[in-house]
Amino acid sequence: MANTFGRLFRLTTFGESHGEAIGGIIDGVPSGIALDLEAIQRELDRRKPGQSAIVTQRKEADEVRFLSGIFEGRTTGMPIGFSIANTNAKSHDYDHNTQAYRPSHADYTYDKKYGIRDHRGGGRSSARETANWVVGGAVAKQVLKAIQINAFVSSVGEIFIDKPYQALDFSKTETNAVRCPDAATAEKMEAYIKEIRKQGDTVGGTVTCVLQNVPVGWGEPVFDKLHAALGHAMLSINAAHGFEYGSGFCGAKMKGSAHNDLFNPDGTTQSNLSGGIQGGISNGMDIYFRVAFKPVATIMQTQPTIDSDGNTTEIQGKGRHDPCVVPRAVPIVEAMAAMVLADFYLMNKIYN
Amino acid sequence: MANTFGRLFRLTTFGESHGEAIGGIIDGVPSGIALDLEAIQRELDRRKPGQSAIVTQRKEADEVRFLSGIFEGRTTGMPIGFSIANTNAKSHDYDHNTQAYRPSHADYTYDKKYGIRDHRGGGRSSARETANWVVGGAVAKQVLKAIQINAFVSSVGEIFIDKPYQALDFSKTETNAVRCPDAATAEKMEAYIKEIRKQGDTVGGTVTCVLQNVPVGWGEPVFDKLHAALGHAMLSINAAHGFEYGSGFCGAKMKGSAHNDLFNPDGTTQSNLSGGIQGGISNGMDIYFRVAFKPVATIMQTQPTIDSDGNTTEIQGKGRHDPCVVPRAVPIVEAMAAMVLADFYLMNKIYN
Amino acid sequence: MANTFGRLFRLTTFGESHGEAIGGIIDGVPSGIALDLEAIQRELDRRKPGQSAIVTQRKEADEVRFLSGIFEGRTTGMPIGFSIANTNAKSHDYDHNTQAYRPSHADYTYDKKYGIRDHRGGGRSSARETANWVVGGAVAKQVLKAIQINAFVSSVGEIFIDKPYQALDFSKTETNAVRCPDAATAEKMEAYIKEIRKQGDTVGGTVTCVLQNVPVGWGEPVFDKLHAALGHAMLSINAAHGFEYGSGFCGAKMKGSAHNDLFNPDGTTQSNLSGGIQGGISNGMDIYFRVAFKPVATIMQTQPTIDSDGNTTEIQGKGRHDPCVVPRAVPIVEAMAAMVLADFYLMNKIYN
Amino acid sequence: MANTFGRLFRLTTFGESHGEAIGGIIDGVPSGIALDLEAIQRELDRRKPGQSAIVTQRKEADEVRFLSGIFEGRTTGMPIGFSIANTNAKSHDYDHNTQAYRPSHADYTYDKKYGIRDHRGGGRSSARETANWVVGGAVAKQVLKAIQINAFVSSVGEIFIDKPYQALDFSKTETNAVRCPDAATAEKMEAYIKEIRKQGDTVGGTVTCVLQNVPVGWGEPVFDKLHAALGHAMLSINAAHGFEYGSGFCGAKMKGSAHNDLFNPDGTTQSNLSGGIQGGISNGMDIYFRVAFKPVATIMQTQPTIDSDGNTTEIQGKGRHDPCVVPRAVPIVEAMAAMVLADFYLMNKIYN
Repeated sequence: MANTFGRLFRLTTFGESHGEAIGGIIDGVPSGIALDLEAIQRELDRRKPGQSAIVTQRKEADEVRFLSGIFEGRTTGMPIGFSIANTNAKSHDYDHNTQAYRPSHADYTYDKKYGIRDHRGGGRSSARETANWVVGGAVAKQVLKAIQINAFVSSVGEIFIDKPYQALDFSKTETNAVRCPDAATAEKMEAYIKEIRKQGDTVGGTVTCVLQNVPVGWGEPVFDKLHAALGHAMLSINAAHGFEYGSGFCGAKMKGSAHNDLFNPDGTTQSNLSGGIQGGISNGMDIYFRVAFKPVATIMQTQPTIDSDGNTTEIQGKGRHDPCVVPRAVPIVEAMAAMVLADFYLMNKIYN
Repeated sequence: MANTFGRLFRLTTFGESHGEAIGGIIDGVPSGIALDLEAIQRELDRRKPGQSAIVTQRKEADEVRFLSGIFEGRTTGMPIGFSIANTNAKSHDYDHNTQAYRPSHADYTYDKKYGIRDHRGGGRSSARETANWVVGGAVAKQVLKAIQINAFVSSVGEIFIDKPYQALDFSKTETNAVRCPDAATAEKMEAYIKEIRKQGDTVGGTVTCVLQNVPVGWGEPVFDKLHAALGHAMLSINAAHGFEYGSGFCGAKMKGSAHNDLFNPDGTTQSNLSGGIQGGISNGMDIYFRVAFKPVATIMQTQPTIDSDGNTTEIQGKGRHDPCVVPRAVPIVEAMAAMVLADFYLMNKIYN
Repeated sequence: MANTFGRLFRLTTFGESHGEAIGGIIDGVPSGIALDLEAIQRELDRRKPGQSAIVTQRKEADEVRFLSGIFEGRTTGMPIGFSIANTNAKSHDYDHNTQAYRPSHADYTYDKKYGIRDHRGGGRSSARETANWVVGGAVAKQVLKAIQINAFVSSVGEIFIDKPYQALDFSKTETNAVRCPDAATAEKMEAYIKEIRKQGDTVGGTVTCVLQNVPVGWGEPVFDKLHAALGHAMLSINAAHGFEYGSGFCGAKMKGSAHNDLFNPDGTTQSNLSGGIQGGISNGMDIYFRVAFKPVATIMQTQPTIDSDGNTTEIQGKGRHDPCVVPRAVPIVEAMAAMVLADFYLMNKIYN
Repeated sequence: MANTFGRLFRLTTFGESHGEAIGGIIDGVPSGIALDLEAIQRELDRRKPGQSAIVTQRKEADEVRFLSGIFEGRTTGMPIGFSIANTNAKSHDYDHNTQAYRPSHADYTYDKKYGIRDHRGGGRSSARETANWVVGGAVAKQVLKAIQINAFVSSVGEIFIDKPYQALDFSKTETNAVRCPDAATAEKMEAYIKEIRKQGDTVGGTVTCVLQNVPVGWGEPVFDKLHAALGHAMLSINAAHGFEYGSGFCGAKMKGSAHNDLFNPDGTTQSNLSGGIQGGISNGMDIYFRVAFKPVATIMQTQPTIDSDGNTTEIQGKGRHDPCVVPRAVPIVEAMAAMVLADFYLMNKIYN
């Protein structure tokens, strides 16, 4: 339901951006799995604010503290409780939001739905919640040791990588602030984001993710298709406006004779426009998908808006916000993908 | 789970394309709702094969039979059981599939996952299953009487409607075989589909859907965002390869200053790039989204493939298949959207 | 939820006692299991009305018809849809109930909850629904071939079997109409039920159930304790008013020194007051529990009551009802136990 | 699933008895409810160890700390995260358990199921987990302000209250250490528990619970019967071995003519052997039920047992354990009942 993600590998979360702490409970992890806690913290560090010049300069330690479910370095099969303190919640940055609704934010819909709103921040609609997901995903990655999960920024505004993912070296993704594995494109993207920030503006982008070594047979044929679960997961990320896998929207323009993936004798396919999923079930080929993120709604320019009484007013972002969300979305995309895969991995232990 | 859709408004289905019947159970419908059973059958008729020259010529009566949950024309609050007989399963059309895997179909993944496969058809991966969804959606539509749900074909191959949806008259959608409300574009699409069929080929396309009159406040802020639920629903439809809402993939190229939807004093917005959803919650504006469908995998041309023993062989589609899936996808998109909305409508009765 | 039972082995049902058919969908059955359909029908025959002199004389063929999920005698991993026609719904037997509320029945609560009631019978509160459960349970039994599930009538009114279950021969349970494996007690029970029926009255009783060969490790330690799931299942059966396992209510009078089950070196225990479950998890010993059933509410005597307008009136049962529910409850108890076990069996494939 | 309780009002928990903290997430609480946090702490204080001479002398502060979901004293509709530190985990008390399995404890089943066990305590099978439930229940009570929930000790060993609950004054329950509202019986119980403790032994007992002012219409007719949900909840409590509601096991001995609850013109009933629930749905009368608890397994006497290698050994309880669990079970029974009712209350907002 609302604050729980997954069927068998389940993450349940709590926490507001400006409360004491956020955290969660990871349930369904099998017992006896050795957990590298530092690797989990490293994933969190990839997501955290203040890590480079092109992201928000808020400083959050984002240190995860595990409270249960781990004994002598191994999972016990019991729920893994964790918390992350909110150490740097500058509530006064948000005072001006007390009444004015930020355009294209969740302020208005929240107020109408719940009738009560912690005006100190975005509440549960804040992207801070995604730190919890990164913890869940980092645990999931360790459950899925044989599987490679690599996300990267594939476009920022109109700038995009003009190569298939097979031509990229994923080990380069973390070598630049944009998280784009193609050095030349990364440079252009970084320059563009800096320019955008100077304008007090923001820009959208896309993240591509490739899942390799997923065995044949994950996913179910009707309502739990693997790509539908991935789509749900990706569209849960703040600012996501689109999802496509395999041939995606381009495939809608193609003919079947060109689109069909012909088999090799070993069951692999010559092309992979299916994106590694046929009939909702993995076929052993690479799974790849792309997520579209709209530009961050909080801009540093003055915008007209209304307050909760319907009076017209003005608003100008003053907090420490990202000019472009996609670099920090990369570890989140990976985390959500990892949790989806861990869930199907467990389900598959029953039915395969 | 696998064969159940929804949290509160729930459809659970069964049935293979070539068994005796398909059917389902709709659970969670409040009591006392007057049901127009003919309207439900009309929705099924929109989906059924053989209704026009550009879709498959299989003939299925597709008559839904309600077995429970309705008394004197009203829902009783009890589960609504229904079945649809498979009257025209020509199993011999599929005999050639006994061993050969159809490229880009679910044959291979099914065999590997379940180790048993009813070679007479696609089993649960057949689009016949979607007839069950149309019944569920038709009931959902009647639960949601004040809401308008209009889907239509927005592109076939490279041909697309070059107008915003606001310029279209949805009452024209059913006036042509393609289900495109723009007459000139519809004509081009129809001609193109006929040409494709002559080539023994198939082509992809997109369906756009507009949801009007959805109240403010539907959707939840974290894992049950309204657009994530819609995305999951749409990506569950056979051949769907992509989903975008509001500004979608185009939004990923935009700047925040251009993308933000500024408020009118009444809480409506001047633009609607948010697609009627902010922070996962409906804001009262039109909700619109687009679904990409790949070309149908079964083509009438000879293709090399392999059989279940890994021998190379050839295959040629002989059944009665659609050259383009999108005209028949229109009522399915509407049905899935209706079920998602009905689910959030019920959830909202608790929390609003 | 309301009409679905189970987490992984899931039965979803529909149907009223006086509609066209009842039925259900069994989801989560692994593929490749050989199903003996006649064995399933035999379980239904054990439950059906009219099978002996001491149960209701309604005649229902209760023939189950499988619609999907089975191919060449084996499960396909797909949902198993089934229906059972209502062939002998004598609605006029119930005409007198149109307005009068039957005491201790669900008529009053139904009317208040749903505002609409099919006065031709008990609707979903009718025990006819349990025929669906017997189908689900019969499939579950075949998933659990190594496990013995034996229920029997352990008391009727004040008459009870004065022996531990270990002294009973379960193969005798079906040799008498009462389904009591102890011949002498069965005779007394049968005579008593006949006498009660002559009085136009009804009587309660208990069913005991023994589960043998359940491996160590089924059940989860917190909210899915094996005995809690069994309790939920048993209390779902019509007229059930109590559940106890192992030492049960007697155990509440005992001291720990007498109650503790001491271990043998092989991990078995010398006594088994734990009822085969410790900390919610099976320990490999016999699991046994007892279910209390109140007397059937419909009696053939005249009772004062009220109608839906609050007027006082009289009512007298005229339909064909059971004087004692426990003989027919035996296969239902077994069916529910089998479904609970099948669910934990599947869950255990993940975590063990 | 395993560590989540409830459908709409959901508690998800984590934590071992000897880890850093336990805690949970309460999801599904509507927004705008004023929460009395001190009242929640008072409920925890009722459960905590060391509060009287007849319970375990372990000292735990058991202070709950709320981390989210509450703003200016009111619920926000967001998940309520909380934690309770484990301040007094004397692990050395448990060292002797490293290898020896305590008879009738979960040690053996845990080891076999998970293959890893935190020998410092009972892990998730420890009753410490129920502190989390008391927090969930205390929040639920505040959601259900109009409903009275009163549990009390109705028997200890062979000593029981020889009066119907209607003759008791629930305000007296907290006036003695046993939590028995009948002063004379309480005195006998207390003396008996002290004697048992002197023997190094333990004793079982029963808790009765009465729910008053529950409106007509809560509960669903098939798999979510109100009493089945209550039974599941109660059987989830450590050491519970039985549950009965209304006439319970006594009802199984009665005739229908004596058992039926005849109506008054206003829809109330003259008797209430139905226990306030008919057909799984509340009828507006008092709901009452009884839970049987076995004697605590840890006794201060020497018992033979085996270790994890199958060697015979001896064990003697040395920790600070309860000689009788029922006094401390009273607030837990109330908490679980409150959560069940809150869940049905929310579900009923949809369907009534």
